[in-house]
Formats: sequence, structure tokens, C-alpha cells
Amino acid sequence: MARFMDVHRGMKGITADQLVQAHQADLAIEQEEDVHFEHAWADPESGIVYCLSEAPSADAVQRIHERAGHRADEVHAVPLSI
Amino acid sequence: MARFMDVHRGMKGITADQLVQAHQADLAIEQEEDVHFEHAWADPESGIVYCLSEAPSADAVQRIHERAGHRADEVHAVPLSI
Repeated sequence: MARFMDVHRGMKGITADQLVQAHQADLAIEQEEDVHFEHAWADPESGIVYCLSEAPSADAVQRIHERAGHRADEVHAVPLSI
Repeated sequence: MARFMDVHRGMKGITADQLVQAHQADLAIEQEEDVHFEHAWADPESGIVYCLSEAPSADAVQRIHERAGHRADEVHAVPLSI
């Protein structure tokens, strides 16, 4: 398992409820790809959402996001953290 | 106080030690701007580093990063998190 940060753009005006709903949609199916989404942070002004996950691969992260209806614009492994 | 995610690019090949040193350089002076850097994640392959902080403003985050020698390419308030 590795850690990933993914980035969604174009989410201007996202609300707290919408962030919760999107996160819940990921959590509902994440086990099917052995992914776990740990946190998400959103900037409604710029429309950027960052998600931190543990997963077997970037593709697995993306597959869960796609199936949940919100494909990520970038998925990066972040093997270093502090 | 608010929460911020900032992004540094061009850090290809960053090592665990370099990430620790950069983070320590921030921590050493962060109090002067009432900033606290909570976490950093790095992708040596793409050269992207993400930093999560609490701070009074994006400018305060950037001033600490600049003084520590690593200006951020983007600083975004992330008022929503989960």
C-alpha cells in the first residue's frame, strides 16, 4: 500500500455538504479496490479539492473516483511525508 | 486562523532528508507569523510537494516559506475539510 494525493479542479463554489457527499460516495465503494480515502480539503474559491488516500496504485484511486462520479485531474504518489 | 494547502513544484528527486530539512526550516520560524505547518507530502517523481498549515493568511504562509528558502507556487485556503 502506498499513499496518494489527488487533485480535482473546477469545483468552484463547492459546499461543505457537497464535499461530504463526494467523500461518502468514495467511501461507499473504496474497499472494492482496497483504497482508503483518509482526508479531503476543498477551496471553494479556486475550485480545487485535494484528497489523501492509501491505495495499491494511482489507477485504483482513479477508478474509485471515476465510479463515484468525480474523476481526479491529477493523482500523485506521495511516498514521502512528515 | 484558517487552514491552507500550498504546492511546490520542481522538486524532482527530493529525498526524505531534504523534506525533513525543509519542514524544519519552516518550523524554526513559523511562530513569527503565527503559522503552523502540520504536514507535508512529497512526490519525488513529479517533483510536487504539498504542505498543510494553519495560518492567519495565505501571505503569512508564503512569507515563512520564502524566508525558509522555498517559495510556494500556489497557496490555497482550504476552509472545507473532512
